Amino acid sequence: MGQQSKKTGSNGNGITVGSQSFVPERDVYIRQSACVAGTKESEGPLGELIDMVGKDDLFGCNTWEEAESTLQKEAVTLALGKAGMKAEEVRYLFAGDLLGQSTASSFGVSSFGIPHMGVYGACSTCGETLGLGAMVISGGMAEDVVCVTSSHFASAEKEFRYPLAYGNQRPPSATWTVTGSAAFLLSSKAGKRNRAKITGVTNGKIVDYGIKDSMNMGCCMAPAACDLIAANLQDFGRKPEDYDKIITGDLGLVGQRALIDLLKEKNIDIESQHMDCGIEIYDSNVQDVGSGGSGCGCSAVTLSAYILKMLEEGVWKRVLFVPTGALLSKTSFNEGMTVPGIAHGVVLESVAG
Amino acid sequence: MGQQSKKTGSNGNGITVGSQSFVPERDVYIRQSACVAGTKESEGPLGELIDMVGKDDLFGCNTWEEAESTLQKEAVTLALGKAGMKAEEVRYLFAGDLLGQSTASSFGVSSFGIPHMGVYGACSTCGETLGLGAMVISGGMAEDVVCVTSSHFASAEKEFRYPLAYGNQRPPSATWTVTGSAAFLLSSKAGKRNRAKITGVTNGKIVDYGIKDSMNMGCCMAPAACDLIAANLQDFGRKPEDYDKIITGDLGLVGQRALIDLLKEKNIDIESQHMDCGIEIYDSNVQDVGSGGSGCGCSAVTLSAYILKMLEEGVWKRVLFVPTGALLSKTSFNEGMTVPGIAHGVVLESVAG
Repeated sequence: MGQQSKKTGSNGNGITVGSQSFVPERDVYIRQSACVAGTKESEGPLGELIDMVGKDDLFGCNTWEEAESTLQKEAVTLALGKAGMKAEEVRYLFAGDLLGQSTASSFGVSSFGIPHMGVYGACSTCGETLGLGAMVISGGMAEDVVCVTSSHFASAEKEFRYPLAYGNQRPPSATWTVTGSAAFLLSSKAGKRNRAKITGVTNGKIVDYGIKDSMNMGCCMAPAACDLIAANLQDFGRKPEDYDKIITGDLGLVGQRALIDLLKEKNIDIESQHMDCGIEIYDSNVQDVGSGGSGCGCSAVTLSAYILKMLEEGVWKRVLFVPTGALLSKTSFNEGMTVPGIAHGVVLESVAG
Repeated sequence: MGQQSKKTGSNGNGITVGSQSFVPERDVYIRQSACVAGTKESEGPLGELIDMVGKDDLFGCNTWEEAESTLQKEAVTLALGKAGMKAEEVRYLFAGDLLGQSTASSFGVSSFGIPHMGVYGACSTCGETLGLGAMVISGGMAEDVVCVTSSHFASAEKEFRYPLAYGNQRPPSATWTVTGSAAFLLSSKAGKRNRAKITGVTNGKIVDYGIKDSMNMGCCMAPAACDLIAANLQDFGRKPEDYDKIITGDLGLVGQRALIDLLKEKNIDIESQHMDCGIEIYDSNVQDVGSGGSGCGCSAVTLSAYILKMLEEGVWKRVLFVPTGALLSKTSFNEGMTVPGIAHGVVLESVAG
């Protein structure tokens, strides 16, 4: 794919591919990235790979919300620092989180003074920001863009569920919101060292199977992930084995099963390729996280800490990264609405020699 | 401007202009638009120009949130209908609103089955979606894109302030959230009739003057509007009189004064050109709306009903449309945080012969 796939667009334009994908016309490198996370994440299987871990989950702040903002600020600072770049050199910052009115982002990144594009895709936000970043670089609107997302266990519990002190019980299908943030510096020009290249993007539709169980978000999101993966394979004319990994954001153990089964109904078998960030980030045998990790930070931290490492080292050549989001609020839940899902897909390829 | 401004980008790339603007490389028409609003808006000065008005503000739904979703759905349906287009022909839908986790959008537009890009820019969302739409068309990722935003007085009061039944008093600096939604169909190709052309975009930074008064959002947002307008004039090498109108989203009477004064400190006088959608949409003498209208729906409805009409008729040749947003949530407000502002600017030009 790549150059060859140009001029194949159904819209009659150069870079669109199939019904909902595109191949960037200019190179889009993930030149650098950084991730910051909490204590529980540092004790998980990816702990050693996380750039910065807080001593406690308040990160020196007075509120959980401020702590989450600090996660974003530190992640962006680290990513720029690693690349030797200043904030003024960045043309756009795409940012989003799970809190109402995206306040973790607003307060987290305002001090950088970068033109700000707020994004909301629930836990698919990392994929949406990377896709938008690839769009503006491909379209020549920017040379360098930062994409950042976050989630925080305590601010998310407060936003969506119960006060922490209430100590509510959780069914095994529930997931644990990751305390973490990751920032990605996308550039049109290769740096000295590049983590990967974005060679395709598939943006997802909202898919609603009528599921209302907010304690089983994996199954709420699995239909959207299924739809996205099928669309990506169709648009690019690929089979699952054309990817070393097909990586969903936070379906967890329960949602993973649903996804694999749903795709089998379409005669697509991703059992050998599938990986889920929510399953990777914690050790569910010892960490009591139910079905796995979730939140915008789950896929973002796993991408920065682990997936990009594997691409950078050339262990994986090409992966499909599919952060998944559940579109609910406490109001919509309390009013008896369903929990629709969404997913955005980013094709990442190794630039290792 | 237009073709001439290419190759002037500070980033060394073709279509960027100055530090935070770009000129689309391909034509971007606002081919069609439609707006739906509530009873109070229908009684205002723009009432006659609104495409559809509900009998009451529940629009046949059971909750205010569902009513707001219905506004979005109707606005998109009307806009596509006017253009004679089907949802399947639209490549991306950029949508956002003020509710926590943007649920008005998620539930409003999911049935169209268009790849969904959730956006959050508070009341600047209309500007952000139009800018993103222009980006993907300019970059060749799409030929046709829909941008939609909404707000609803009752769902916003519930989300940010007090229960309606409580009947809280409001200071004169407070604004009234518009119940309304507007959808815009952006296309690379001219239709039989086109409402206007997007010839430039300036994306704004978050600007925080430390104001904490959520009952004076005009003054919270005025610094961001000032920053954006100054950047736009600088980037494009223009003076205020190069625009027939410079139109902010929802500063209201109090914020308008602040904006004009702040710009005068930079030796920019927009007093003759300035217009604010929040002032236009209601008659503040008789409608008891305090400083004016606000909300994502305020700038969006005014754009669709009035501004695009003036451009379509050639009364105005070129305007700078600057929706303004206040970045707060009830949690950030209750935790004593400031209310930072943001603004996004879209240059609209008449295509009337």
